Amino acid sequence: MAPHYSADLEPAGLSDTQAVVVSKSSITDSITQRRAQAGRLIAGVAFAASSDNFKAPSTGKPKARRWDHYLSLESKSRTPSSLKAAARFLKQPGMISLGGGLPCPEYFPIDEMTIKIPIPPHFSEKETKETGQVVKAGKYEVSEGHGSYDLSIALNYGLGTGSAQVLRFVTEHTEIVCNPPYEDWHCALSVGSTSALEQTFRMLCERGDYILSEEYTFASAVETAAPLGIKFVGVKMDSEGLLPESMDEILSNWDEKVQGARKPHLLYTVPSGQNPTGATQSTARRQAIYKVAQKHDTYIIEDEPYYFLQMQPYTGPGAPDVPPPANNEEFLKVLIPTYLSMDVDGRVMRMDSFSKVIAPGSRVGWITASEQIVERFVRHNECSNQNPSGISQLVLHKILDESWGHDGYLKWLINLRLEYTRRRDVLLGACEKFLPREVISWNPPAAGMFLWFKIDWQKHPDAQSKFILDIEEGIFMAAINAGVLLGRGSWFTAEKGPVPTDMFLRATFAAASNEKMTEAIERLGAALREHFRIA
Amino acid sequence: MAPHYSADLEPAGLSDTQAVVVSKSSITDSITQRRAQAGRLIAGVAFAASSDNFKAPSTGKPKARRWDHYLSLESKSRTPSSLKAAARFLKQPGMISLGGGLPCPEYFPIDEMTIKIPIPPHFSEKETKETGQVVKAGKYEVSEGHGSYDLSIALNYGLGTGSAQVLRFVTEHTEIVCNPPYEDWHCALSVGSTSALEQTFRMLCERGDYILSEEYTFASAVETAAPLGIKFVGVKMDSEGLLPESMDEILSNWDEKVQGARKPHLLYTVPSGQNPTGATQSTARRQAIYKVAQKHDTYIIEDEPYYFLQMQPYTGPGAPDVPPPANNEEFLKVLIPTYLSMDVDGRVMRMDSFSKVIAPGSRVGWITASEQIVERFVRHNECSNQNPSGISQLVLHKILDESWGHDGYLKWLINLRLEYTRRRDVLLGACEKFLPREVISWNPPAAGMFLWFKIDWQKHPDAQSKFILDIEEGIFMAAINAGVLLGRGSWFTAEKGPVPTDMFLRATFAAASNEKMTEAIERLGAALREHFRIA
Repeated sequence: MAPHYSADLEPAGLSDTQAVVVSKSSITDSITQRRAQAGRLIAGVAFAASSDNFKAPSTGKPKARRWDHYLSLESKSRTPSSLKAAARFLKQPGMISLGGGLPCPEYFPIDEMTIKIPIPPHFSEKETKETGQVVKAGKYEVSEGHGSYDLSIALNYGLGTGSAQVLRFVTEHTEIVCNPPYEDWHCALSVGSTSALEQTFRMLCERGDYILSEEYTFASAVETAAPLGIKFVGVKMDSEGLLPESMDEILSNWDEKVQGARKPHLLYTVPSGQNPTGATQSTARRQAIYKVAQKHDTYIIEDEPYYFLQMQPYTGPGAPDVPPPANNEEFLKVLIPTYLSMDVDGRVMRMDSFSKVIAPGSRVGWITASEQIVERFVRHNECSNQNPSGISQLVLHKILDESWGHDGYLKWLINLRLEYTRRRDVLLGACEKFLPREVISWNPPAAGMFLWFKIDWQKHPDAQSKFILDIEEGIFMAAINAGVLLGRGSWFTAEKGPVPTDMFLRATFAAASNEKMTEAIERLGAALREHFRIA
Repeated sequence: MAPHYSADLEPAGLSDTQAVVVSKSSITDSITQRRAQAGRLIAGVAFAASSDNFKAPSTGKPKARRWDHYLSLESKSRTPSSLKAAARFLKQPGMISLGGGLPCPEYFPIDEMTIKIPIPPHFSEKETKETGQVVKAGKYEVSEGHGSYDLSIALNYGLGTGSAQVLRFVTEHTEIVCNPPYEDWHCALSVGSTSALEQTFRMLCERGDYILSEEYTFASAVETAAPLGIKFVGVKMDSEGLLPESMDEILSNWDEKVQGARKPHLLYTVPSGQNPTGATQSTARRQAIYKVAQKHDTYIIEDEPYYFLQMQPYTGPGAPDVPPPANNEEFLKVLIPTYLSMDVDGRVMRMDSFSKVIAPGSRVGWITASEQIVERFVRHNECSNQNPSGISQLVLHKILDESWGHDGYLKWLINLRLEYTRRRDVLLGACEKFLPREVISWNPPAAGMFLWFKIDWQKHPDAQSKFILDIEEGIFMAAINAGVLLGRGSWFTAEKGPVPTDMFLRATFAAASNEKMTEAIERLGAALREHFRIA
């Protein structure tokens, strides 16, 4: 079986699709229509595709700015591979390739794969077990004339963009959710956002650079940057997350000589359900931050693993729930707009991930940014992870594209929203019941999987005699001894030098059962009372 | 469902296994026995394991040397994550974790997965279709008391070593095949050898360094190194690959001032079925190269994607075939010993990959090296790709571990050996029949998927008037115009500066059918005759 490259397999008709300005309400319909016009996607082994093959035609949007002035020496040095460039000859009819070392699919020892998955909107495990659908992937379906992704393609080598099949889905999904306001936006698959983050640091930073982020931030982001010689500068936060005034102040007053480094040109932010604080930036907050980024020519990394874990408004114990979104259209409307959706300059790289909304074990995510940035990213993919697992991609395609479609996926995301709302409310209910408010406080999170406790450590009996981090350690260990594992606030500081003045603990409502969560909070309450000697 | 961490789940009994010196013949039996003694492997979500849990007990082997003097600034700066370190508290009985942000498996939308696979030794596609076995992975099998890897584990987050389940298999497989002669060898999964290579360059090199390799080498290795500011120095080759004398000469005469760089301390080599030359180093050659590495304290990257594509001896057209290995024991005996198997110093990192022996789309490989090197590699995994796709790992586990076992996998590898032998022989047969030996010559490869043609370009009509690379381009395009895509030798030069004196073309016998391969070579023969104006 030779790879299925063929000139007539490109969905080239797409660019002829009539330009229509669509509202979010009809956007999934418009995608269905566009697909129907393009015909069956036939993209064989290592088929070259880009988001341009799958996007709505541009309607006079501006082009993204260029970022040559920020590209690292490493990133600028990347060149396309000669071997991959030669793949263009495969489009010549009748060509026999003795070129690339692609193994023959005959030797892939899987003849068929099935997965049993829920049918929207019957998403629960019980419903899946009882009424779920068994979806099948054969080995040679595409060359046999049906389907658009099979084992012979998924199990072979792919390209640095990820497969055409999954790239199509995430491009369309990004259009539905973000519809970036510039012309040349592209997506590329990543092997997860931590990897995408490392690649982006290497693309846009040099050793010695500083990156802006929330003052408490995703610890792995700091740990990923540190060995590259890149440090974080913490921007002050409030309950809506990063403060634009603080960001402006840091950038306006940056003194290269004092800091020993050039002014930061990169902001790393988790806008929704931020890890660890659970803070969610409002629309106005995002607009204000984007404006500061424009003022200082800052490039923004919008890391959004929790974007679809935006929850229903918290109403408090006993109060009636806010009714869930009536349909996909309403759901899309209640989501806070993304940075990407307001990105007129092309200064945002958005990182999406399937980890929190499908499964972390898929190790599939994607980035969206301007063509220039995505091209550099893909060049790096080619010389590192290459592309996500084809088996993962095939599974995602079977679920998201072939079975659920965009409508079904949005329904799944609504379901998740309600599930996480329920979990959060259980945790908050337990907190209200069991925690000593004299020494611990919190804001109900609007998104994500984390609750951020502020500890009034000044009330600790040893506050005058002990170092703050030792008191934090004492509280952490008191909780451990009571049988509750939490995250220590100091693990999440963006800047590793300064002694913190505030004290926090992080709790997740993602993993434990209702009963366990409640029990854990009851234990924490008792431990705090004892530790703080509260009657 | 909380993660299944528990102190009593560790296969701690392993270290009590009686030390036995085993011959290759009985080694799979000994592993079966060891597993039986250890009991069912129960390793839940993100369960921490290392090769030490699965290796035979050390029998007085020496410890590996330390490589601190070669570790890069980047690699030395890596520290373990505080959050991951806190996972040790999860072993405390009754602990409730509100710590890590692990999603609840309840929201992974796959209830069951099946794959249809061959039963050894009935490996062909036809046999698989007719008599293959359908293997099932459920969601909660492990916590329900059976199996050792299920969807709830595979679809969640993992650790930087890869899953305990697949780590066990590759550790045992490495012991069977290589049995490294030092004590503290470890394995860790990679997301493929290209990624492992990039990580290793970043671990052991700084910008400006040179790496030794075969003078013609895997183009992606050069392209991976180049943006990092790392250049390749080509070591001369003969039909058995890299020449130890040439390596010694380069290293002995290295002048830091002339070269503007420190003496190379890293050798990148593909010992079996080298890409692109198809050369395979004999045992004596490997020993000689290892000796030169010891003399100059060179660290060796042994990249072995084609190790199990060692083929039967080539007997020529019409001559009877050499009988295949009678059993696994004989098979293991005919394989040329690996560098790892002779690595008394712990100076080798071996890279294995499932790409050529199972499927490239799995994006799973593994490295084997000393504990120090593997620990640094795993720290990097944690801040980049994290681990291979859990779905891929589960599929590999189901095939290799649960269904085939080590014995079945070795049978599969014998089958591949014979299949690639057959393919090579078809290509060589066509070459003997159709190619004009006046201008083209080749050595029958003993391993891999490539045939390396030497072109006697001096006989080209324009040899006196044209530049060698233009003549190469002309021949490449003449083949393209005749409908054959080959690789140009110049794509594979380790050093990009010097003008080559020899000319080569690379052909693969991995992908095309017998008929297509034969037709391609017939076309190439005709194109060469016309291009060289041979009557």
